[in-house]
Amino acid sequence: MREVVVIGCGMTRFGELWEKSLRDIFVEAALKAMDDAGVDHIDSMYVGSMTPGIFVGQEHIGCIMADYLGISPVPAVRVESACASGGLAFRQGFIEVASGMSDIVLVGGVEKMTDSSDAIYGLAAAADREYEAYNGVTFPGLYAMIARAHMHRYGTAREQLALVAVKNHKNGSLNPNAQFQKEITVDTVLNATLVADPLTLMDCSPISDGAACAVLCPLELAKNYTDTPVRIVGSGVATDTIALHQREDITRLNAVVKSSEAAFKMAGLTPDKVDLAEVHDCFTIAEICVTEDLGFVEKGKGGKFVEEGKTALDGELPVNTSGGLKSKGHPVGATGIAQIVEIFEQLRGSGEKRQVKDAKIGLAQNMGGSGGSSVVHILSL
Amino acid sequence: MREVVVIGCGMTRFGELWEKSLRDIFVEAALKAMDDAGVDHIDSMYVGSMTPGIFVGQEHIGCIMADYLGISPVPAVRVESACASGGLAFRQGFIEVASGMSDIVLVGGVEKMTDSSDAIYGLAAAADREYEAYNGVTFPGLYAMIARAHMHRYGTAREQLALVAVKNHKNGSLNPNAQFQKEITVDTVLNATLVADPLTLMDCSPISDGAACAVLCPLELAKNYTDTPVRIVGSGVATDTIALHQREDITRLNAVVKSSEAAFKMAGLTPDKVDLAEVHDCFTIAEICVTEDLGFVEKGKGGKFVEEGKTALDGELPVNTSGGLKSKGHPVGATGIAQIVEIFEQLRGSGEKRQVKDAKIGLAQNMGGSGGSSVVHILSL
Repeated sequence: MREVVVIGCGMTRFGELWEKSLRDIFVEAALKAMDDAGVDHIDSMYVGSMTPGIFVGQEHIGCIMADYLGISPVPAVRVESACASGGLAFRQGFIEVASGMSDIVLVGGVEKMTDSSDAIYGLAAAADREYEAYNGVTFPGLYAMIARAHMHRYGTAREQLALVAVKNHKNGSLNPNAQFQKEITVDTVLNATLVADPLTLMDCSPISDGAACAVLCPLELAKNYTDTPVRIVGSGVATDTIALHQREDITRLNAVVKSSEAAFKMAGLTPDKVDLAEVHDCFTIAEICVTEDLGFVEKGKGGKFVEEGKTALDGELPVNTSGGLKSKGHPVGATGIAQIVEIFEQLRGSGEKRQVKDAKIGLAQNMGGSGGSSVVHILSL
Repeated sequence: MREVVVIGCGMTRFGELWEKSLRDIFVEAALKAMDDAGVDHIDSMYVGSMTPGIFVGQEHIGCIMADYLGISPVPAVRVESACASGGLAFRQGFIEVASGMSDIVLVGGVEKMTDSSDAIYGLAAAADREYEAYNGVTFPGLYAMIARAHMHRYGTAREQLALVAVKNHKNGSLNPNAQFQKEITVDTVLNATLVADPLTLMDCSPISDGAACAVLCPLELAKNYTDTPVRIVGSGVATDTIALHQREDITRLNAVVKSSEAAFKMAGLTPDKVDLAEVHDCFTIAEICVTEDLGFVEKGKGGKFVEEGKTALDGELPVNTSGGLKSKGHPVGATGIAQIVEIFEQLRGSGEKRQVKDAKIGLAQNMGGSGGSSVVHILSL
């Protein structure tokens, strides 16, 4: 298998993009990424999107995006793994370039959620519809159960959950592409509307529109396009039971553990070598569980990890420097690629006000459902 | 890239499977394929499904199918390219095995359409929702326009369209997995309810439930499992404009032309070397256009090709020996893999009453929308 690098990235601002449609935002991000990479053609394309069928009545996503990008008859594949669709698109592009099948591959993610009259119904399609959603439990409820179990088992404090949101909003305030660019306090979180006890509105990522893209090529071609290619050194994906009630321990996200192990094994690295990480903070408790299950901190100590500032922008392992899903926004299919965009910018030193000093190795973790799937990538200068 | 073979296949019967759910039918087909291949584990899985979100409210398809098949944490990827989703899943599995990333890969397709209260809305998600579907045109209308243009330009006769349905029903009557297992006549087609002039109900493939799976591995491992591996010698995928009105000539399916050229180039073969083909006859006119655009017969002569019996079971190029989408049924995401199942059975000599004598090379062509995407695979003993 060939070594694969990222040579360019681009994204729309995330938010309520009323004046733009699904196809518009994908094309905007794709052209930005192609311009950034300096490529004038694409050999193949992967698009991650979760449920454009439910949100805007459109499927055949590879075809329509290739068409509106003006690159037909180029092969175009849509992949889906709920909120991990973007990360999965990145992985499939990586495999195609690594295999030798294609050289210049565009990978992207896109979702238009605010046009839907019932985004909650669409999102619940990531859960087990028959055993979970039809019985009334939606994602805030599922993650609230994880939060309660984590608090019960490990003594994680309510304020520690809130601190995840506070940190991510602080980072997001420095990101011009973030949906919310303002800081909040622990009190803002604790006093917000209760959504599913103990989670308030400010523990939850928002409904968003957005798209993000990256351009991949084999290492040997990278010098034609850039002096700062970013290598993909590890890739892992894993699944778990789709329904929460089937798991032995709901505080342990097994798909995260397994996808992380696979990515670190491929990279020949250990978690302590990572300089920064973008992780799937769809709810504040998710970031805590994920940092534990990725091996950054001992199981049960994720709350303390945040509280001690270890994951802050100037901490020992900055987590979600982009603002994360919480503050940057969470257009579900686009999120996995937007994580890659942040890591790419940080590693090549264009992180602007969010720049992490001496960042050499970054990790992106993207999750589907309540942990039914997880995709991990490790990038290195 | 490594050589890749098919070592086993399995499918449900296609039809109105009221007593089974989406997950049930996928697992049924997957276990049949794994049993046929004699494998006791899977390294990775691809599932093609068009719009389970609209049809049954379920996404996260890779995860849920891996879960119910009992193979989590194995990586599982859902791919979508409208009605070409199954063919695309096959291609992605092929690339993953060829790349060296995985050895034993399960590829499948599944769709549960009869549970939906509005299957037409779901299917129309394969068209351009904003420019086609929302303005009232659905797939019978789009293919009717193609039929009228073909008749006008090439003198194709109404009866020639009907003969596609007659042939495919005859083949389907010999297939125990077909939704419709009875023969029809030209009069049956001409006198059926008009759906979109000139197409009657009997020119249209049905609404179906069903699943189909295949197991892939590298050639060097095949001898551990079977004496009759079937090699994947060509793979091609291409896109076209999603909307019909954007095309220069609506009788020419450019994605079929391009995907076919790519597959034949990879295989080092020409269309005259093919012994049998499964092609995407979602409507009778589609089979005529596709046999032309694959290069089996001169453009405009597809109607005559059928009329002269060239594509019959005992003709020079048997087409849709399985019964095709028309008679076997068309659970959209499953169709592309079901085509592979038929080619695989024929090449290893287990085609039973439909067996094509001395079949050595088979082609499968799977299409999305009104030709917005097409996937072609060439299999060889």
